[in-house]
Amino acid sequence: MKSKEIPDIIIGRLPLYLRALQRLEDRGAVVTSSQELGEWVGISAAQIRKDISQFGEFGKQGTGYNIKFLSEKLREILKVDRIWDVAIIGMGDIGHGVANYQGFLDRGFQVTLAFDNNPEKVGKKIGNLTIQDTSEMVAAIKAADVKIAMIAVPADYAQAVADELAKTDVHAILNYAPICINVPEGVRVQYIDPATHLQWMTYYLD
Amino acid sequence: MKSKEIPDIIIGRLPLYLRALQRLEDRGAVVTSSQELGEWVGISAAQIRKDISQFGEFGKQGTGYNIKFLSEKLREILKVDRIWDVAIIGMGDIGHGVANYQGFLDRGFQVTLAFDNNPEKVGKKIGNLTIQDTSEMVAAIKAADVKIAMIAVPADYAQAVADELAKTDVHAILNYAPICINVPEGVRVQYIDPATHLQWMTYYLD
Repeated sequence: MKSKEIPDIIIGRLPLYLRALQRLEDRGAVVTSSQELGEWVGISAAQIRKDISQFGEFGKQGTGYNIKFLSEKLREILKVDRIWDVAIIGMGDIGHGVANYQGFLDRGFQVTLAFDNNPEKVGKKIGNLTIQDTSEMVAAIKAADVKIAMIAVPADYAQAVADELAKTDVHAILNYAPICINVPEGVRVQYIDPATHLQWMTYYLD
Repeated sequence: MKSKEIPDIIIGRLPLYLRALQRLEDRGAVVTSSQELGEWVGISAAQIRKDISQFGEFGKQGTGYNIKFLSEKLREILKVDRIWDVAIIGMGDIGHGVANYQGFLDRGFQVTLAFDNNPEKVGKKIGNLTIQDTSEMVAAIKAADVKIAMIAVPADYAQAVADELAKTDVHAILNYAPICINVPEGVRVQYIDPATHLQWMTYYLD
């Protein structure tokens, strides 16, 4: 399926399509159209058809897309037809919020490791998770063969954590720390920083 | 300053520059270059110079940018040279995490209103905030003239909250609910959905 290189921007839209399809499915819908999907995700029907057709013929002109079938295909393409283990580093408010978030499992993820360097937090439980000391991070991530990590430490510590993660097989990092991190080639980083999103919008406020 | 229309994608990069400048300033740096800034934000020096030059002559060839001066200018442009009040709707784990987040204030934001429809949460305090009933939301937001809201309710309720917010003067919404929302023209929405970010990266994992 990766015989041709698909632009990263298209890959980035697939999770939005999948999210909308899952909601349509929850509502009991069986088929959908690129028009309807477009309304759900705020992307044009033509763009959606073009994006999806990169991966094969998943719909029929006139009859639209079978929701269950297209969802399955998108899950396969995005490799979330399985459950990925995720490690969280930094168990402050954000780390806690993410660890408790119930919405990950049906989207392909479960938090299985949690780390903090605060002795008062180490050993505490969050659901089934026990917070471990950050000094154990590299060994524990390697032992569990975890490939995805979320960094939720203060900005000053984020690069040091990223440097430690570089010793493991983690190849995808979701960084909640409000700072850009440098990672080895082949490791992907995505950022979540609400203040950045807000500042983008205040520009337009009166 | 808005005599010409600046592309939205450029506006979206300014908060990243500002964030890096604030960190450089925290470290005691006085001047920086587009090269150095580029290393901090992962954007080319040429792009940074081009972006910033859209707004005026804020640096000198050879001597670079005065960090304090450029920060102030970017704060003015992004209108975060003031503190914006923010309302949070939905005080689950995410709402709590965001309400407790200490990093907003020095970036232009403070959470001043919090709402939930769970009677057990209404009246509870989070720091100086008292959680109010969602039924009071429209009146309270109007009375306080709040223009920014964060939606942190479950996906099934997000559109209803957005519809209520349309009755207020809120023109910027940060939506943590994993669903696209429809808003009136003139209202901006940004999305934070960690699962979407993660699924974007799993495509590239082996």
